[in-house]
Amino acid sequence: MTSASPSPARRSRPGGRTGRIRAQVLDAVRAELAERGFDGLTLDAVAARAGVHRATVYRRWRDVGGLLADVLEATGDDDWQPEDTGSLLGDLSALNHENQAALTEQPSMAAALIAASFRSEEAARGVRRLWEDRYTRCEVIVRRAVERGELPPHTDARRLLVAAVAPLYHHLVLLRTPPDPDLPDQAARTAVLAASAGAFAATEPPPTEGPR
Amino acid sequence: MTSASPSPARRSRPGGRTGRIRAQVLDAVRAELAERGFDGLTLDAVAARAGVHRATVYRRWRDVGGLLADVLEATGDDDWQPEDTGSLLGDLSALNHENQAALTEQPSMAAALIAASFRSEEAARGVRRLWEDRYTRCEVIVRRAVERGELPPHTDARRLLVAAVAPLYHHLVLLRTPPDPDLPDQAARTAVLAASAGAFAATEPPPTEGPR
Repeated sequence: MTSASPSPARRSRPGGRTGRIRAQVLDAVRAELAERGFDGLTLDAVAARAGVHRATVYRRWRDVGGLLADVLEATGDDDWQPEDTGSLLGDLSALNHENQAALTEQPSMAAALIAASFRSEEAARGVRRLWEDRYTRCEVIVRRAVERGELPPHTDARRLLVAAVAPLYHHLVLLRTPPDPDLPDQAARTAVLAASAGAFAATEPPPTEGPR
Repeated sequence: MTSASPSPARRSRPGGRTGRIRAQVLDAVRAELAERGFDGLTLDAVAARAGVHRATVYRRWRDVGGLLADVLEATGDDDWQPEDTGSLLGDLSALNHENQAALTEQPSMAAALIAASFRSEEAARGVRRLWEDRYTRCEVIVRRAVERGELPPHTDARRLLVAAVAPLYHHLVLLRTPPDPDLPDQAARTAVLAASAGAFAATEPPPTEGPR
């Protein structure tokens, strides 16, 4: 949901020379992506900027998709958490403002990664993992709201989060409308109103045993 | 919002030979796109399948983006209208089911066009026009609901429609989750509940004159 991405299946890599080469190459990918966008990203330019042998880059990352997937994976080491503002509306608004900022900054790594996911299967898998991880981390927003009594205990956290976040991505990524400064708050408010009306009530788990 | 697309700025083209060539080429684009996807789409293959000189295709359509933009434009002659089911919830559900079907059919022209919009500026412009036209046509759903008394007169139709539709595209196009048969109805219901709670109340236009 934001530009950074952890990967649950992160491979461990040895440090030392191999680790240093990886760091150099991934820094070069980020810089090239920021300067030239996906269309300007080539393994040759990355190798040149990183000061690493072309053959090494081709062997280890194979193609642009491989580079992007590894950037996504490397970003996964962050400790990003959604902001805790003290209310469901505040938390969802903050999340949407953060997403809008990440998608509209120039250059936007988040937008570049989404675009790349339509071009490379490896990038698509990396972005899918990113979304999954980010949504999982965001579930704490719903748990906190349940604890505060703002939401009923059986609330479908994922559906609520998607309802709050989806209009923003819809506008910025699919419709490609200019960013609307009111949209982050409006979309958050819409989701909260729908939640209050029972839109995300999850089916209660059946009792495991007991007399009928 | 669905796979077909009208274009408000449709150029008129002469009929006869020029029109026939266009029809042959666009049929070939649709067939190639359906069989091979965006990655397999080449001007050479389109020319061969259409039985049209390569030079003609290159001169008139220039690149894959030009072909896609023209497919989008040609599709614009349809008379698609959202289904009239007699209720706001029914209309939004029907729209979402239609969108889900268009995005998940194999092969999906709708999905191919969205993917293409991340690769070609011309395709991106064509897809933007498609969305704009489809959303405008869908505003009748909200007008009908206002007339039935289901919604207050000052309802922001576009925001309501985006709220109903966005979660579906978010899942299928961005998160790439498997299609959930319940999602079309759930997302429609969420938007209706939010609307009932006043989420899409538009600012009333100020009175044009009168004593203060």
